[in-house]
Amino acid sequence: MSIESTDRPAAPTTKASAEHPFDRATTVSRNVSDVAKATTSDDYWAFVGPFGGITAATMLRAILDHPERAGDPLSLTTNLCAPVARGPFQLHTRLVRATRSTQHWTVELRQPEGGVSAIASAVLATRRDSWAHQPATYPKAPSLEATPVYQFSGTVPAWISQYEFRFVSGAPGFDTGASTPNDPTSLVWMRDRQPRRLDALSIAAISDAFFGRIFQALGRVVPFGTVSMTTYFHADGDDLAAENATAVLGAATGRSFTKSYGDQIGELWSPSGRLLATTTQMAYYKA
Amino acid sequence: MSIESTDRPAAPTTKASAEHPFDRATTVSRNVSDVAKATTSDDYWAFVGPFGGITAATMLRAILDHPERAGDPLSLTTNLCAPVARGPFQLHTRLVRATRSTQHWTVELRQPEGGVSAIASAVLATRRDSWAHQPATYPKAPSLEATPVYQFSGTVPAWISQYEFRFVSGAPGFDTGASTPNDPTSLVWMRDRQPRRLDALSIAAISDAFFGRIFQALGRVVPFGTVSMTTYFHADGDDLAAENATAVLGAATGRSFTKSYGDQIGELWSPSGRLLATTTQMAYYKA
Repeated sequence: MSIESTDRPAAPTTKASAEHPFDRATTVSRNVSDVAKATTSDDYWAFVGPFGGITAATMLRAILDHPERAGDPLSLTTNLCAPVARGPFQLHTRLVRATRSTQHWTVELRQPEGGVSAIASAVLATRRDSWAHQPATYPKAPSLEATPVYQFSGTVPAWISQYEFRFVSGAPGFDTGASTPNDPTSLVWMRDRQPRRLDALSIAAISDAFFGRIFQALGRVVPFGTVSMTTYFHADGDDLAAENATAVLGAATGRSFTKSYGDQIGELWSPSGRLLATTTQMAYYKA
Repeated sequence: MSIESTDRPAAPTTKASAEHPFDRATTVSRNVSDVAKATTSDDYWAFVGPFGGITAATMLRAILDHPERAGDPLSLTTNLCAPVARGPFQLHTRLVRATRSTQHWTVELRQPEGGVSAIASAVLATRRDSWAHQPATYPKAPSLEATPVYQFSGTVPAWISQYEFRFVSGAPGFDTGASTPNDPTSLVWMRDRQPRRLDALSIAAISDAFFGRIFQALGRVVPFGTVSMTTYFHADGDDLAAENATAVLGAATGRSFTKSYGDQIGELWSPSGRLLATTTQMAYYKA
């Protein structure tokens, strides 16, 4: 099946495949080791700010590119405090504590005006072989190739066009006018629209690519904003290289929507049936 | 059914019921608004440091007791960087960003020697009524009263004696010598052994009271340590007061154990069937 374009063209790729839109959007530079510089990307714009997943990935990149970094991401929590304004921002990184096999980092996203817009904490680990077991069950789904690419109707935020979504179940039922809550569960193949081998950065971003569970439950789009999200990585760099995958099978649901906040819980699976990451988030909604 | 004591007596209560062991253990005092002082509690000691849940709750208390605090906990992430040494510690709190209805806080736990042992981030929110829906299904379980109190064999860490566990399923199968992995799922009533009305603090602590899923999967106790845990609160202070409950029905499982780290995902339900909180954590193990 060909990868069909949505209504917004991908940003032109200026440096052939070496410069993927995702890498361009998450680029950080630093002169001072604990302050990295970056700029928001129109390619990953959402409603009132960047796609939360690209913000999380950029914050993680500021850690992974740090000269003192050791190990691979084990956990990442990003709290989105306020919309990030279009333009440049600084990422203040801090290695809070290191042990023989772990590093605890924090990152703050600051802008010239407006203060701190996001904070993140991450644990990096140098992982060792051990007894292993994967109790979670790989969801039953047709293969990526056998699942049609979802075509969004109308104009969608830019970031959506950077991904390809192939829904096995729980495709957006927006504007169905459902009068009762829908099951907030979705099973969906997701990948960068310009395929890119999965790494911790893209997993951090894709963790936020499930659409708001409240949209699914309500059957319509409402004002929405993720306030906190956490991803746990069950595959390190070597594992991801061995998987050599560009797509994840994502499963997400929500368990509670009350007093303007609802949760999301998700799993990201490799095509071979390995649980690459688990994720959860809490989001504001107005409904 | 009477509440049977385990082999370690509860700490003496010096100020009658006004001074519950949990409140004594999580007490913080402050002269400077952004630096609170606290001390580890032998009542909640684990193996090489305090029970992680009591550390998380104490860090949260430093926020909730802060003069600038507004709103109730929505999310709490605690990263346990290194064992907290027995004795005094400082909690450095910072209100990173506030919006009309939310506050983003960070807390660092520092000790005179040894630096930062734990960091936490929390989102507080003043929650407003909204469309509400609870898609999660209340687990089928006998009532608290109809479920026997679990009796641990041998000596257990002090913190365990501060709680009452009533397993519906997945009771610790330690030392069974199972040669194949067991289902890491447990369903268990949990409450403070000296019953105390649930609030955000005790929910933060109880989120960590499920035993390591790796113990359950392996059928034996192995070196173990939580490195990051997150709790989302689906009930605010008014909701918890209305529930007026002292016990939660906890459901927990693990989805991946690989390269020395495994996850846990859990739900905390009120006896009336309300999902009070959801929680997840990533933990080190040696096996």
